[in-house]
Amino acid sequence: MNDDLRTPELTPVRNETIDTQMRHRSFRSFTDEKLSPEQVETLLEVARHTATTAFLQQFTIIHVLDPQVREQIYAASGQPYVGGNRGNLFVFVVDLYRNSRIRSEGGMDNEPLERMNLFLEAAQDTMLAAQNVVIAAESLGLGTVYLGSINADPRLVIQALDLPRYTYPLVGLLVGYPAEEPQFKPRLPRAVTTGVDRYPYVSSYEEALAGYDEVLQRYYDMRDTNKRVDSFTHQIRTKVGKGPSESSPVLSILNEQGLVLY
Amino acid sequence: MNDDLRTPELTPVRNETIDTQMRHRSFRSFTDEKLSPEQVETLLEVARHTATTAFLQQFTIIHVLDPQVREQIYAASGQPYVGGNRGNLFVFVVDLYRNSRIRSEGGMDNEPLERMNLFLEAAQDTMLAAQNVVIAAESLGLGTVYLGSINADPRLVIQALDLPRYTYPLVGLLVGYPAEEPQFKPRLPRAVTTGVDRYPYVSSYEEALAGYDEVLQRYYDMRDTNKRVDSFTHQIRTKVGKGPSESSPVLSILNEQGLVLY
Repeated sequence: MNDDLRTPELTPVRNETIDTQMRHRSFRSFTDEKLSPEQVETLLEVARHTATTAFLQQFTIIHVLDPQVREQIYAASGQPYVGGNRGNLFVFVVDLYRNSRIRSEGGMDNEPLERMNLFLEAAQDTMLAAQNVVIAAESLGLGTVYLGSINADPRLVIQALDLPRYTYPLVGLLVGYPAEEPQFKPRLPRAVTTGVDRYPYVSSYEEALAGYDEVLQRYYDMRDTNKRVDSFTHQIRTKVGKGPSESSPVLSILNEQGLVLY
Repeated sequence: MNDDLRTPELTPVRNETIDTQMRHRSFRSFTDEKLSPEQVETLLEVARHTATTAFLQQFTIIHVLDPQVREQIYAASGQPYVGGNRGNLFVFVVDLYRNSRIRSEGGMDNEPLERMNLFLEAAQDTMLAAQNVVIAAESLGLGTVYLGSINADPRLVIQALDLPRYTYPLVGLLVGYPAEEPQFKPRLPRAVTTGVDRYPYVSSYEEALAGYDEVLQRYYDMRDTNKRVDSFTHQIRTKVGKGPSESSPVLSILNEQGLVLY
């Protein structure tokens, strides 16, 4: 684990849970072994026990078992490791539909659900549940990888999972038995990512991140790959906004779903 | 812990981490004791090790120690337990500013950061980090409560924390030593919140949630409070969209910050 950039004076408190969290890496290669029904049950129960904004409980989790449905999620994502049948695939859906139906059945209108506020709260609930699942899975010795890539073609995911109005497939998650041992990828130094009482302004990021750029470059150089990768600052300058999920018309699709109208 | 509504046939796998997650409740009352510097260090390091979309690392955590700044966060939130000085207050900020500066220093434009996609990815990163902090805190025997309520007046939070363009204070978090022992609040049954391969449609939520409405009503009745609270379906019909954070102009404020422009 590369902790080069950690504040050196203080020793973090450790326990089993925190050790699990500090060991986090994404896994993109899994064995053929599937999760047991008990493991799936555990992950879904953990999700169910997550904090939820204003107790609205606005998320739904779809477990993809049908190879044809998985094929469509793979097509939406474009990531090779989503294809095939390794790992268990879950899609975390922002869900204001359930509450819209409860309101409709009671004769109430659904205008409030069309606001950015409600969508944002529901998206928060969804991500909290997803991260709870990730920690639980990691504590069981499983590996995980988030699939933000399904946002490259959310319409295809909506169709594949037969999702109704007022829902949005925010993120996918693969959980499985690791078939690789990735290194810990060094994160930005805390000097720029945390502050006390106010935003941690720096006069030059070029300067503030010179050390980090080196550490990260070393990480890439040591990785068993022939893919040339650049320093953090160079990545941010050249890649941001260019991924398929970053150029897909997400706001329009949310609007089509009746969400984020104002 | 009320597990009335859990699928009965399968026994979830348990370990220390999962036990912590299954015991989750929100705490709104804390003792005077503050977190130790080592505990704060641990929580911030755990956040730093969280998964991040496309490695963009687009969040910043502000630890609020100044009572005057806390007073302003309290004013924005309106929740009584945010006032005073109990618990440690953290604000989780969606941060595209850092990457905008890295781009500007390299002569690149920031148009991509103004898209919904990038904001949504950054908001996801922010919430994953927040939930990681919550689990770590709970594993240390601390209590937590999310403060979505700061969205009731985000402009005040932006001002209080001196937040730049391309940032948004998504959620607050209080962490402290519990001074209460709240009951577990029963969640929706999995039949309506999880599906296999497709959305879990039901013909009538009135019917599907009749049992849950009863369980939840019992929970409220047993709580030591004289506040009259209703069944889940009644809450959804009467309260959604009416909270101060749900009617604040969040989309306009995001736009003012240069975010979610299209």
